[in-house]
Amino acid sequence: MTMATFQELHYTGYPLVLPNAWDVGSGLAFAEAGFPAVGTTSFGISASAGMPDGGGYSKAATAALLPQLCRLPVHVTADIEDGYSDDSAEVADYVAQLAAIGVAGVNLEDSKDGHLVDPSVLAAKIAAVKRRCPEVFINARVDNIWFKEQATVEAVLHRAGVYADAGADGTFVPGLVDPSDIRTIAAGTALPVNVLAHPSLTVAELGELGVRRVSSGSLPYRASVDAAVNVVSALREGKQTPAATSYWEMQSRLEAFRDSSNA
Amino acid sequence: MTMATFQELHYTGYPLVLPNAWDVGSGLAFAEAGFPAVGTTSFGISASAGMPDGGGYSKAATAALLPQLCRLPVHVTADIEDGYSDDSAEVADYVAQLAAIGVAGVNLEDSKDGHLVDPSVLAAKIAAVKRRCPEVFINARVDNIWFKEQATVEAVLHRAGVYADAGADGTFVPGLVDPSDIRTIAAGTALPVNVLAHPSLTVAELGELGVRRVSSGSLPYRASVDAAVNVVSALREGKQTPAATSYWEMQSRLEAFRDSSNA
Repeated sequence: MTMATFQELHYTGYPLVLPNAWDVGSGLAFAEAGFPAVGTTSFGISASAGMPDGGGYSKAATAALLPQLCRLPVHVTADIEDGYSDDSAEVADYVAQLAAIGVAGVNLEDSKDGHLVDPSVLAAKIAAVKRRCPEVFINARVDNIWFKEQATVEAVLHRAGVYADAGADGTFVPGLVDPSDIRTIAAGTALPVNVLAHPSLTVAELGELGVRRVSSGSLPYRASVDAAVNVVSALREGKQTPAATSYWEMQSRLEAFRDSSNA
Repeated sequence: MTMATFQELHYTGYPLVLPNAWDVGSGLAFAEAGFPAVGTTSFGISASAGMPDGGGYSKAATAALLPQLCRLPVHVTADIEDGYSDDSAEVADYVAQLAAIGVAGVNLEDSKDGHLVDPSVLAAKIAAVKRRCPEVFINARVDNIWFKEQATVEAVLHRAGVYADAGADGTFVPGLVDPSDIRTIAAGTALPVNVLAHPSLTVAELGELGVRRVSSGSLPYRASVDAAVNVVSALREGKQTPAATSYWEMQSRLEAFRDSSNA
C-alpha cells in the first residue's frame, strides 16, 4: 500500500484531522474508522491512570502504549508534554527511543506546571531532537493562549518563529479560536499551523483560515468517559440505553489485532 | 460515613446497578456519578490493552488497577474470568491478594476459551476462595446461556445449586434475557441473581422478575469507544461535535484524586 507520509498529510488541501488515543483500544477504533494518522493525548493517558495532565505522569505509559499503536496501519504522533525533562539531550534520547518504535512525530510544548517557559528552552530541545532524529515531525506547541500568558498574536508569532528557526516542522497553538487571529498566525508562519478542535469553527472553516491540522486533543477521551457514565446512569434510571458496537464484533477486532502481531 | 456493605447492596428492594470500569479514569467517573459499587470488566481491561477477552490477558492489569479503584469511596468487585488458573489454590491466592487490596467481591466463571467446564471445577475454586477469604462476595457465573451450551433453565439451576453449596454468595447468568426464564431462575435459587443489562428489559422490570443485581458488563466500555470515534468522525465531517465535560473540570477531579492519596 502506498501511503502518504505523515508530513504529506499536512498538505492535502484539507486539514489533517487527528484523533488522539489514550490506550490501544481507542487507537484500534480510530484506525478501524479510517483515520490515516493517530496522535496520543497526554491528558487521556494520565487521566486513564487517575493522574492529572502536565505533571509528567504520562511518560512511561506513553512509551508503553506507542509500540502497540505503531502496529496499526496509521502514522503515529506522540504528545510528550515538554519532553519530560529540562535537559535537551534527555529529550532527544526519549524521542530517539520513540522513533525506533516507529513514531512519525511528536508534540513538544513550551510550558511547565501551567506556565510558559522561556522560548529558548523549547528551541534547544527542538534542535537537539532534530539533530538526533531528523525524520521525526516536530510539532512545536506555543502555549501563550492556552495558559493566557502573553496571549497576543505577536507573542505567538515570535515563539513560532524561534521554533521554526530551531528546526520545528509544525506550529501547534492550542486555545486559538479567534478567526482573525487564526488567519494572521497561519499567514505569519511558514510551518503548518495546528489548532485544537473547537465547537465554534468547522474543520472546513479552519482550513479556509489557513489551518493545516486539527487535533481532537482530549475531547474524544472526555467524550468517552461521559458516554460510559451516561450509559450506566440511563440504565439505573430505567431509560433506554443507546446501542453500541457489540461485544462479539469488538472481540473479533481484538482477535484480528492480536493475530496481526504473528503475521 | 456509614455505608451499606457490598452484601447489603443486593437487598435494597431495587436491583444493584453495577457500572464496570476498565481503568482508573472510568472508575473515578462512576464514583463521581454516585454509584455505591463499581465492578471491573475483563473485556474492557483486555480491550484497552488491545487484547481479546477470555484469554487471561486481564490478570496483571486487573491486579494493577484494583489498588487505585479501592481508593474510591465505593465497594469494588473484580471480574477475574475463571480466576486465571485451573488450580483452586492458585485462584484462592490471587483472590487473597485482591482482598488485601480491599476488594469486596469477585466474579468467577465456569467456562474457558468460550466453552463450559465441568461445574466441579468452579465449585472447587469457590470452596477454596471461601475458606481463604470468607468475607469476599463470590459471584458465581453460570455460562450455559452466554456460550449457548446446555442452555436450559434446568441446567442453569443445577449449576447455580452446585455453586451455592460450595459457598457462593451470588449467581450471575450473563445472556439471560427471557422474562419467564429469569423469573424461574430467580425463584429457584436462594442466592441473589445477577444478569447483564439488555435493552429489552428495564432495571425495574428485572427487579420485578426477582433480579437483585444488574451488571453493565462491557457496555460502558463499548459505548465509550464508540463515542470517541463518533466525536472525531463528526469533526472530520464538519458536523457539530457534542459537548463533553471540560478539560479543566476533569483535570480538577484528577488533582483531587491524586491529592486524596496523601490524606
